[in-house]
Amino acid sequence: MGVSGSSTRKVVESFKMSRLSIKYTPDDSDSDDPLLSPVATTDDERVTERSHRVLPNQLIETIEPSQRRRGRISSVSEYDIVADRMVPKYYEDFHTIDWLRDKTKDHLRHKLIENRKRTSIGAFFNKYLDAASGWILVFLVGVAAGLLAGVIDVAAIWTSDLKMGMCPSSGYYGAQQCCWLNNQSYAEEGSCSAWQEWSDTLSFTSGPARYAFNYFIYVLFSVIFAGLAGLFVVILAPYASGSGIPEAKTILSGFVIRGYLGAWTLIVKIAGMVLAVGAGLSLGKEGPLVHVACCCGNLFTRLFPKYYNNEAKKREILSAAAAAGVSVAFGAPVGGVLFSLEEVSYYFPHKVMWRSFFAALAAAFTLQLMNPYFSGKIALFYINYDHTWHLFEFVPFVILGILGGLYGAFFIKCNLVWSKIRKNKFKKFPLPIIEVLVVAVATGIISYPNIYTRDNASEVIKKLFSQCGPEDNNDLLCEYNRSYTYNLLDEYHDNEATSKVYEAMLLLSLAMVAKAILTIFTFGMKVPAGLFIPSMFVGACVGRVIGIGMEQIAFIYKDSWFFKLFCSPHEACVTPGLYAMIGAAAALGGVTRMTVSLVVIMFELTGGLSYIVPIMVAVMISKWVGDAIVKDGIYDGHIHLNGFPFLDSKEDFIHDTLVCDVMKPQPGDAPLETIDLSTCTISSLRKLVRESNYFGYPCLLSNETQLLEGFLTRKDIMTSLELIDARKDEDVTEESRVFFLDKSHRLQEAVVDSDVPSVNIRGTIDPAPIQVSDQTPMKTVVELFGKMGLRQAFVSRNGRLLGIVTKKDMLRHVSSMEKNPYSIQYH
Amino acid sequence: MGVSGSSTRKVVESFKMSRLSIKYTPDDSDSDDPLLSPVATTDDERVTERSHRVLPNQLIETIEPSQRRRGRISSVSEYDIVADRMVPKYYEDFHTIDWLRDKTKDHLRHKLIENRKRTSIGAFFNKYLDAASGWILVFLVGVAAGLLAGVIDVAAIWTSDLKMGMCPSSGYYGAQQCCWLNNQSYAEEGSCSAWQEWSDTLSFTSGPARYAFNYFIYVLFSVIFAGLAGLFVVILAPYASGSGIPEAKTILSGFVIRGYLGAWTLIVKIAGMVLAVGAGLSLGKEGPLVHVACCCGNLFTRLFPKYYNNEAKKREILSAAAAAGVSVAFGAPVGGVLFSLEEVSYYFPHKVMWRSFFAALAAAFTLQLMNPYFSGKIALFYINYDHTWHLFEFVPFVILGILGGLYGAFFIKCNLVWSKIRKNKFKKFPLPIIEVLVVAVATGIISYPNIYTRDNASEVIKKLFSQCGPEDNNDLLCEYNRSYTYNLLDEYHDNEATSKVYEAMLLLSLAMVAKAILTIFTFGMKVPAGLFIPSMFVGACVGRVIGIGMEQIAFIYKDSWFFKLFCSPHEACVTPGLYAMIGAAAALGGVTRMTVSLVVIMFELTGGLSYIVPIMVAVMISKWVGDAIVKDGIYDGHIHLNGFPFLDSKEDFIHDTLVCDVMKPQPGDAPLETIDLSTCTISSLRKLVRESNYFGYPCLLSNETQLLEGFLTRKDIMTSLELIDARKDEDVTEESRVFFLDKSHRLQEAVVDSDVPSVNIRGTIDPAPIQVSDQTPMKTVVELFGKMGLRQAFVSRNGRLLGIVTKKDMLRHVSSMEKNPYSIQYH
Repeated sequence: MGVSGSSTRKVVESFKMSRLSIKYTPDDSDSDDPLLSPVATTDDERVTERSHRVLPNQLIETIEPSQRRRGRISSVSEYDIVADRMVPKYYEDFHTIDWLRDKTKDHLRHKLIENRKRTSIGAFFNKYLDAASGWILVFLVGVAAGLLAGVIDVAAIWTSDLKMGMCPSSGYYGAQQCCWLNNQSYAEEGSCSAWQEWSDTLSFTSGPARYAFNYFIYVLFSVIFAGLAGLFVVILAPYASGSGIPEAKTILSGFVIRGYLGAWTLIVKIAGMVLAVGAGLSLGKEGPLVHVACCCGNLFTRLFPKYYNNEAKKREILSAAAAAGVSVAFGAPVGGVLFSLEEVSYYFPHKVMWRSFFAALAAAFTLQLMNPYFSGKIALFYINYDHTWHLFEFVPFVILGILGGLYGAFFIKCNLVWSKIRKNKFKKFPLPIIEVLVVAVATGIISYPNIYTRDNASEVIKKLFSQCGPEDNNDLLCEYNRSYTYNLLDEYHDNEATSKVYEAMLLLSLAMVAKAILTIFTFGMKVPAGLFIPSMFVGACVGRVIGIGMEQIAFIYKDSWFFKLFCSPHEACVTPGLYAMIGAAAALGGVTRMTVSLVVIMFELTGGLSYIVPIMVAVMISKWVGDAIVKDGIYDGHIHLNGFPFLDSKEDFIHDTLVCDVMKPQPGDAPLETIDLSTCTISSLRKLVRESNYFGYPCLLSNETQLLEGFLTRKDIMTSLELIDARKDEDVTEESRVFFLDKSHRLQEAVVDSDVPSVNIRGTIDPAPIQVSDQTPMKTVVELFGKMGLRQAFVSRNGRLLGIVTKKDMLRHVSSMEKNPYSIQYH
Repeated sequence: MGVSGSSTRKVVESFKMSRLSIKYTPDDSDSDDPLLSPVATTDDERVTERSHRVLPNQLIETIEPSQRRRGRISSVSEYDIVADRMVPKYYEDFHTIDWLRDKTKDHLRHKLIENRKRTSIGAFFNKYLDAASGWILVFLVGVAAGLLAGVIDVAAIWTSDLKMGMCPSSGYYGAQQCCWLNNQSYAEEGSCSAWQEWSDTLSFTSGPARYAFNYFIYVLFSVIFAGLAGLFVVILAPYASGSGIPEAKTILSGFVIRGYLGAWTLIVKIAGMVLAVGAGLSLGKEGPLVHVACCCGNLFTRLFPKYYNNEAKKREILSAAAAAGVSVAFGAPVGGVLFSLEEVSYYFPHKVMWRSFFAALAAAFTLQLMNPYFSGKIALFYINYDHTWHLFEFVPFVILGILGGLYGAFFIKCNLVWSKIRKNKFKKFPLPIIEVLVVAVATGIISYPNIYTRDNASEVIKKLFSQCGPEDNNDLLCEYNRSYTYNLLDEYHDNEATSKVYEAMLLLSLAMVAKAILTIFTFGMKVPAGLFIPSMFVGACVGRVIGIGMEQIAFIYKDSWFFKLFCSPHEACVTPGLYAMIGAAAALGGVTRMTVSLVVIMFELTGGLSYIVPIMVAVMISKWVGDAIVKDGIYDGHIHLNGFPFLDSKEDFIHDTLVCDVMKPQPGDAPLETIDLSTCTISSLRKLVRESNYFGYPCLLSNETQLLEGFLTRKDIMTSLELIDARKDEDVTEESRVFFLDKSHRLQEAVVDSDVPSVNIRGTIDPAPIQVSDQTPMKTVVELFGKMGLRQAFVSRNGRLLGIVTKKDMLRHVSSMEKNPYSIQYH
């Protein structure tokens, strides 16, 4: 509209003459993928060699006389930097990767191996090794994760129990193992003589002194272990702090954090975890196991350049590693795969899922062979209930779900506020350590008097989940007035609670409050710290208390029509352990907002389909309640707090903005830095990379037309310039024109005005960068970025470049539209 | 290069004046999403009303005098067809849906409800009902799937057993239920008097006559049931044949097959399944349960227009339904979700996964309450082995994997060849029925003499999976020479096999061959037929035979160093049942190429982690072997055979073609049908829709520039024309110019040359269709189509339209590049 046709037609015709005809002239038969054609058609072998050697500055010159003879070009030197695309560390630290580019890179690599496979037997086997490398890698990662988990389990039990006493017969065993190995049963304090409390070793006998001494030793060990863990983390590897899941999520979504998954971090994390768990801090080792497994994954990729040199491919292995981590943390391989799929991973095609499952199984099986709990079971809390639940119990289950959601929202809010304060105030060296020591002292002092906080948290959770039976008769929780009239199992259910049970309920309530408050301050400190166990602990306490309450109501009113309707007379009506389990799931769901994976993990713990229905209901309600109060789960909250550029694939973007509202430049901004292909010289390129620092630059046909022709990354320009410098071509001056034509374009198509010799660099320009119209709705663009793994998209209208949208711009926009108080940092 | 700058600059400047400035003029503040702005800013209420009434041809006229006053336009009538976007049956039968478009549609609908929620209490609750509708739907689908599965289970047991006899005390029970309810144990023929074979009812006593009579009745029932099933399917609902999984996959990938998930198909499928299983044909009811559940899903969407009127949203429910179907088929809810994710679904975000899990649990729980097997367990083959496996057994496990892969490839090849013959030859009416009858007679005659083919296949599989124990001592498979020296359980293992066991091995081998051959001819016939059970049967037979062989080797050489090394002396060394299970998994994996979901289903059947490791290894090897021989699984094979346009999201496209090789028009083709926005009149639109039949048309700024401005669907053009006709606007003639401007464009921007009154139709044009450059690699485009759910993409270079790539073109190209002999039909 409003454009006079004749001049446009002229331009269009000249386009057609100069460039569009390229594709359709009959003599142009070898115009394949521009990235590949020079490789595939000229000399495969040499290029393959090159790509195997992988030296960043390797300079290859390919002057083709046949090209030189044709056309109007007086002298063109050709440089080929295809091989350079295999360079590791292509991305800077704290930068976003371009999945599409990395996939193309891998495709090229794969092609070279395929082309080469018929040339020699070695190359042929190389192809199969290449195909198998992913499986080998995930197998190694799984086995490593299983071994490390076993070592950590054993060590953490030992350090935990060291606070209370030791096993003189074999010093490296925990209390339970010590008693078992000496053929003594381990149930309550003092019941097993093989295990000596610290007071026993020094022959304290009087009650209060003995208690005070043990108390003191407990707090002392707590402080020493916590201080050591904090020191290790702060001095040796700051990345080893926390659970690592927020960072793992960010890395898997395509962000580069160098050293986060390094060997040093791994070692410090393992040592720190063992110490922090031993210190009795309010944290778990389940979340950090995901970080440990991801470190293994990252380290093993060094064996295969296919994965090590390609950030996108590396993330496939990391997804599998995350699955293996959860698999060994809970002994739930299927839950691990679903956790990786739901919570951690970003790119999770079927191939990755199958490999993740393999890694998770390998890890679980390795752990089972190690048998760290001496029980033959690897499920952290393996439970088998004798009785099912009744329909009326949906009411307390729903209440547990609501409480779980409320607790989750409360915890997230408080923890984020405190984390923000910590981030701003506790930066300088001694402060983080002092924080750790203070929390350790507080934890020690608060924990010791209450048996439910004194013991290892996962042991207590196991106790809360179980039903009372013959074997755990000594515990306060199971001190019922037994009426030995019915059969053996049922006598442990539905009896009148003694005052000891009410005492246990009080202690549980206190433990719950203490854990809830301590965890707020613990999570985010400079020690390795997971959230699963403390969250489940809080939920399990609430659940057990409500469960006992329900049980006693059912017992007292057992003759009312209501309970006669639902419960059979000589059978247990209410199982308090199930309530604890549901409460734990609800609280964990409220904090992490996990859904399917959480329910499946619980499913693998109990094995019974019927118990899963109430767990699912509670998790659903907990998530709804939590979402209504605080939108993000704790991991997303910490991602935002750290300003990581993370795109949540779970949420649809629902606002009506258009690309033109988001793209850069906005009115008033400086124009984009671009490369004018019609005037590009060596000096102009040098100027560009010297004066700006963008990831890449759009290439225009000419500055007048503003028509977008392609995309060049800064790294490729710099490599090209190094290439030109290194070659010391006498004809080439600073004013030489530079072309980025691929073979299919035929050099004679290029119009060279000057008499200065020109340079052509092949294999650098991306001739088809993703473009969107300025009228495209942002919700389409958000989907495009998320699903295609883009780093940037160019905004054009009728081919004219209007601007650029980067992932960071897009994330900032998403964040601002959702009124998120956090900002996106990094690139 | 090669374009003289001055004329280009002129064009560019005039562009800038006329159109690009739209966005940046400061008075242009209300330029939001063009689809939404007229709705959201003018009169929300009326549009919401309209979209609720949802009448396809509802005509709304919106003349805005303020617009008319401005600019050079003498008279413009405005029509708004935004409301029309809620029309159901937007797509024709056998057409591909546009996910992106449907998502936008749903977004608009959601926006209207959001905007309206503050206006009244009803609207407020409407919002929450809208949010809950997905959950309500999947709950209903799950419960319905559970109920139907229970009914089918009970009915199929009854019809199966009816071939052999009846229960005089209660005629509608099968043999097992009949004996149990009469407090008699059911183990071998004749052991329970409550159940009468047909020969008993007529008092046949002599051996051969009795056998012949029973044989005859067996074949007779077989033929009657199969004939009835075939008649029902052929006459009443042809879509009820087969397993339905290939078609469900295709539908979920975004294809429309009207009636495939209708009520009529559902009823016929259920009746047909019961009859076909009862006939003893070599088929299972597990696959068809997926189809049944999907039918329920489709039917229940009628309750909520949100899902019923939106094909993309409807597929979310269907994914959940597929999960519920597998969940009840095997009693494996997690496996069901993973099956839906891995095998059936196309678009499976976390939200859908969570809902699918809910549906799968609801279905499984409903089935458990119904308790159709009278066992309290819903897992089809619930197994608990007493002994674990040994490392040396990996050798037979790997062999089972290889055999499974070979069988799968063999079955797929033969079945596809036969299906092709059937497709070409057996079209006319009586032939399909005759085919069914012939196969039924053959099946009946072959099956009766062998006890392992005579019985219901899933009962036999259960027997093959089990270990020998006190309860099944009568079976041939467990006739060992017991040495009653060790403890109770172990005496059933590792004994010398009697000749009866060898007889059983022979019978199993014969049964395996018979099933393998019969299934080739059965799958694809005009009866409802699933593949899971026959495939597992074949694998289980092979596995059990090899297992018994291994067991006997271990028994005979039990004193050799080898077995002394691995096996403990007084314990079972080899469990033949585990071999049967692994063989079944391998065979099923070879046929269907399922991976994670298959292993998880097996995991849910056994519950033991350690048994899963060999199953996973066997499934992996089976898939590799199978893939090496025949690339596609049986479902994909049937999809290709039927010519459905299905994009396999599991496979990467690895070829180096570019968009310009695939797009239409290719050199020599007729140019695209386009709409020239600068000259578009009512008569030209009429001509366009009269003379062509494309899904939509690209809109060009003008034919001279060829600059792509937007996209109009045929349906929208036709609705617009109806709108104009219905309005009977006197000023509007056939030569009236038609604009498709949205409010943000401001009418005065339009250049109207003629004096004839113009018409503006808002809310029709898509101003930002997805565009790709002609140099874009096809692998990027394949990914783009797959992940974004596109129906078409326009190919442009520098804004000029070069062509179009549709999903069908892309699929044809993928198919041809992979040298697939099948072709893509339909649109």
